[in-house]
Amino acid sequence: MKCVVLLSGGIDSTVMMYALMANHELWPLTITYGQRHVKEVNAARKVCIARNADLAARWEHLDLSLLSSFLKCTLTGYGEVPDGEYDVDTIKAMFVPNRNMIFLSIAAGYACSLGAECVAYAAHHNDAVVYPDCRPEFVKSVFETILMGTGGKVSVLAPFLHFTKAEIVKLGRGLVVPFRSTWSCYKGGELHCGVCPTCLDRKKAFEVSGIEDPTDYADVKA
Amino acid sequence: MKCVVLLSGGIDSTVMMYALMANHELWPLTITYGQRHVKEVNAARKVCIARNADLAARWEHLDLSLLSSFLKCTLTGYGEVPDGEYDVDTIKAMFVPNRNMIFLSIAAGYACSLGAECVAYAAHHNDAVVYPDCRPEFVKSVFETILMGTGGKVSVLAPFLHFTKAEIVKLGRGLVVPFRSTWSCYKGGELHCGVCPTCLDRKKAFEVSGIEDPTDYADVKA
Repeated sequence: MKCVVLLSGGIDSTVMMYALMANHELWPLTITYGQRHVKEVNAARKVCIARNADLAARWEHLDLSLLSSFLKCTLTGYGEVPDGEYDVDTIKAMFVPNRNMIFLSIAAGYACSLGAECVAYAAHHNDAVVYPDCRPEFVKSVFETILMGTGGKVSVLAPFLHFTKAEIVKLGRGLVVPFRSTWSCYKGGELHCGVCPTCLDRKKAFEVSGIEDPTDYADVKA
Repeated sequence: MKCVVLLSGGIDSTVMMYALMANHELWPLTITYGQRHVKEVNAARKVCIARNADLAARWEHLDLSLLSSFLKCTLTGYGEVPDGEYDVDTIKAMFVPNRNMIFLSIAAGYACSLGAECVAYAAHHNDAVVYPDCRPEFVKSVFETILMGTGGKVSVLAPFLHFTKAEIVKLGRGLVVPFRSTWSCYKGGELHCGVCPTCLDRKKAFEVSGIEDPTDYADVKA
């Protein structure tokens, strides 16, 4: 089955892509929207190349940086990315308005063009607590909308909806995912900063899963 | 109430914008996606200027022509735009995969950024017969998805869902819409071609409503 994978280059979408390889012909799509952390694009390319040549050849990057002035938040350059754990204020500042619906819509249109039957999206349980557009009821709704909008041609896969990030890391280890090549940090520096909400999430997922974290963090001195 | 209007520069969205002026602070948004008929952009700008300076100042054009290679159809340069009335084949060739959901998602993200409470979309009864993503059940579904994806902040207005295009033209006449400035033709020539499916629709709407059609068509010799 042909499937468009929304691949950010982070841990979740990379593990999902590796997991779906067995049963799908995957078409990875990385969309940028003028975010600070464009290092994700390189990460996305690398994790495709690491898996196999077909995947690398089918990978596409769609640069929609023009969107950034229409989607204002700290990730698109309006204000600073905060440090520390997720709380009400950091979430508010980091939420990219309706980004996931925009990405899923585009991926569904692309799937139609390719004759692919589905779009895969790595929303998971930890993100659902934080972001409204990662919740099961949102995914159900977007699934129905895409099915109708494409005349019944494209459906949405969200295999991690009830997985924690630690469980995703565990699965990824079994699939030999090159975690070092993935990128999470929202600040987009040379190394993962280690202190922004998403770096803390990344660290915690390795800790909880009991798997060694191969990431070089800027806040950890060698 | 602040509202983002998806304004293509055609008759339907222009009449909708003029109709909503009375009760809304409108933020017109024109999105291009590499379609042949970029003349729409100029039309969109003109109908804003014709209405008032505030509207003209708030109008935005978002150029997403990079999307065209991901959304293949005759309108984005893959094959020829057919002549004649809509039929199964012309519809199939002209359907831009999932375009309306993509546009609505972006408009909803933009609405969040602006602090606007809604997005207005001019889907109407005649289009509903032809395109899956103009049907009431699609609009209901996209309404719910956007509401969830934006954490309850943005809703969708679709005031023409049960209007025919002829009824829209009638309403537009009462609102003194400058029909001559609007653009429908999918071929994007110097004048409206007068023979493609959307030109035939435009002609028919004026005919049925009994209102004089001010359009210069290339197929009508003076």
